[in-house]
Amino acid sequence: MANEFVVNPWEVKGDIDYDKLIKEFGLKPLQNLPEEFSDNVLFSRGFVFAHRDFNKILDCIKEKEPFVMMTGLMPTGKFHLGHMMVAQQMIFYQNLGAKIYIAVADIEAYHQRQQSLEDSKKIAIDEYITNYIALGLKPENCEIYFQSNRSGDGKKASAFYRLQNQLARHATFNEFKAVYGDLTPGKIIASTLQASDMLHAQLPEFEGKIPVVVPVGSDQDPHIRIARDMAKRFPEYQFDSLCSTYHKFMPGLGSGKMSASDPNSFIALTDSPSEVKKKINKHAFSGGRETLEEHRKLGGNPDIDVSYQYLTYFEEDTQKLKQIYDDYKSGKLLSGELKKILIDKLSNFLTKHQEAREKAKNMIAKFI
Amino acid sequence: MANEFVVNPWEVKGDIDYDKLIKEFGLKPLQNLPEEFSDNVLFSRGFVFAHRDFNKILDCIKEKEPFVMMTGLMPTGKFHLGHMMVAQQMIFYQNLGAKIYIAVADIEAYHQRQQSLEDSKKIAIDEYITNYIALGLKPENCEIYFQSNRSGDGKKASAFYRLQNQLARHATFNEFKAVYGDLTPGKIIASTLQASDMLHAQLPEFEGKIPVVVPVGSDQDPHIRIARDMAKRFPEYQFDSLCSTYHKFMPGLGSGKMSASDPNSFIALTDSPSEVKKKINKHAFSGGRETLEEHRKLGGNPDIDVSYQYLTYFEEDTQKLKQIYDDYKSGKLLSGELKKILIDKLSNFLTKHQEAREKAKNMIAKFI
Repeated sequence: MANEFVVNPWEVKGDIDYDKLIKEFGLKPLQNLPEEFSDNVLFSRGFVFAHRDFNKILDCIKEKEPFVMMTGLMPTGKFHLGHMMVAQQMIFYQNLGAKIYIAVADIEAYHQRQQSLEDSKKIAIDEYITNYIALGLKPENCEIYFQSNRSGDGKKASAFYRLQNQLARHATFNEFKAVYGDLTPGKIIASTLQASDMLHAQLPEFEGKIPVVVPVGSDQDPHIRIARDMAKRFPEYQFDSLCSTYHKFMPGLGSGKMSASDPNSFIALTDSPSEVKKKINKHAFSGGRETLEEHRKLGGNPDIDVSYQYLTYFEEDTQKLKQIYDDYKSGKLLSGELKKILIDKLSNFLTKHQEAREKAKNMIAKFI
Repeated sequence: MANEFVVNPWEVKGDIDYDKLIKEFGLKPLQNLPEEFSDNVLFSRGFVFAHRDFNKILDCIKEKEPFVMMTGLMPTGKFHLGHMMVAQQMIFYQNLGAKIYIAVADIEAYHQRQQSLEDSKKIAIDEYITNYIALGLKPENCEIYFQSNRSGDGKKASAFYRLQNQLARHATFNEFKAVYGDLTPGKIIASTLQASDMLHAQLPEFEGKIPVVVPVGSDQDPHIRIARDMAKRFPEYQFDSLCSTYHKFMPGLGSGKMSASDPNSFIALTDSPSEVKKKINKHAFSGGRETLEEHRKLGGNPDIDVSYQYLTYFEEDTQKLKQIYDDYKSGKLLSGELKKILIDKLSNFLTKHQEAREKAKNMIAKFI
């Protein structure tokens, strides 16, 4: 089959048909969002495209009721544009009044990458948390914690790990296997801990029963499903069922997936403007024609052009974006020119962001 | 084979050949103990018969260096004479200066018996901890905690569960399977938690590196082995390898194993003297002869007589015990008379113990 695609926590490949994925996973398309979402390109341009039980969160926003946004970070590699999509959602929800819970998945990295807790801490701070702050995360109404060290008093810490220890009774080996493929003891441990990450905000020791939304990439749904299932079967506490949203993958520069092991596949938020210029000119997959003449005559294909895809994320002015699309398609705008628009946009953003990062470094202590 | 026996955490059957068991498990016989042990019948009469690395503990006792005795209790059923053997070892080591760590295995009971944490707490207090106190456990130098709620500040609680979460990387599925038979996610969770129970006293947040002895029944060695193995492979911290001692099973009244589901197989420390009299007269397996005449002529067999076995535990006066043995063997002492000696001994002990239990109830708060 031409269009075969695979999307799961262990493999993402092929041309992803998001409509089909919605049906396969049993998600709902994200539609008819209220005004608060209209200025955010992630929502207005369909990057965040599907959900489970998100109406509960919309109700909270409408009624100004409290809710929690929970997400985790795997402290490996460079913080790149793909990670930025999650960070922007955190900040968006925080500004809407949500309490933010962020788990540093250092135990998961310990099991799956044999990475020490010390290395995880360093990467989490230098790469992830510093960038979150520079992007606008505020310390108020925000709990960042390490899986290996749930902050707070003994009562809170015990409640978090107690939930992990109890949850394991409520899923079978086969269910874990369906999510994780080949199982190891470490994967089971990490999965129950991840479920506690997603659910523990609702415990009496934390916020009490409260709607929680977990925004994830669409490969992460199996994690959501198993946590929802365990929560439903939990006899001791009636959890509000987890809400989740799903965002599309930001394509890698070469049009495949961004890969942490290939720096030319992504743009990191610590890349210098000159590196970015080089990466885009050399590696960004182009929808332009082979020759200048052909391009002028037949026009380019913005729909497969990675630079254009990135602009749909970075160019907030919809009119301007449409002009770029039309000009590229007609052949008026050349590939090099399109790339230059992106390079300028990104350089401008990264220069400001990297200044913000320097200030952010002094604020780390307010967060952890 | 006539003498086939099975001893593992899931099954104990047959006539146990403890010498063979020492070889099979790779234990060392417990010999040449110093003076401190000579007055304790558990040691002087060979109830505690084997060990791993116990010399480290003997050195601590000799040099008056600190050490820890750690044990766990599974909060199910009635506290009976079998449990008392462990309690007496706790108290013995506490009197020798050891710090005592006692884990209430409520998470294990949650997984393996589907027992709620509330029920576990009640049973742990009413049956186990109250009896420990009545038997002489002191609150000083003693930490009793629940697996679901490691007491102390957030730092301590996190350190305990962090160790659990990390340990899972250091054993394979097959190793867990060898210990636990059919695996479930809950058994893996409970096993890693149990390993943390045994090892965490050595962490800097608790006692720091220190010798730890875990006294167990000889069916529990696989638990010790897997915890020792995980500890050895742990890259972040060099644990002192666990020491352990092994005690024999106290026979059930009917000469099989004591079974929590059959009250006539054990004597509980809350049984009334009249219940005990009935149980022993009716159910205690006798080594006596069929008829009075035969018994007088041929003598009884104390070695298979359960009442005599219990007296080896309760009659501290070795001379008296030898007299009973000889008289029974010669036929001078009848089965009913032997039973009466035990009944009197036990009634006396239980009457005093049950008074002590009433006082102990007011002391619970000092322990947990």
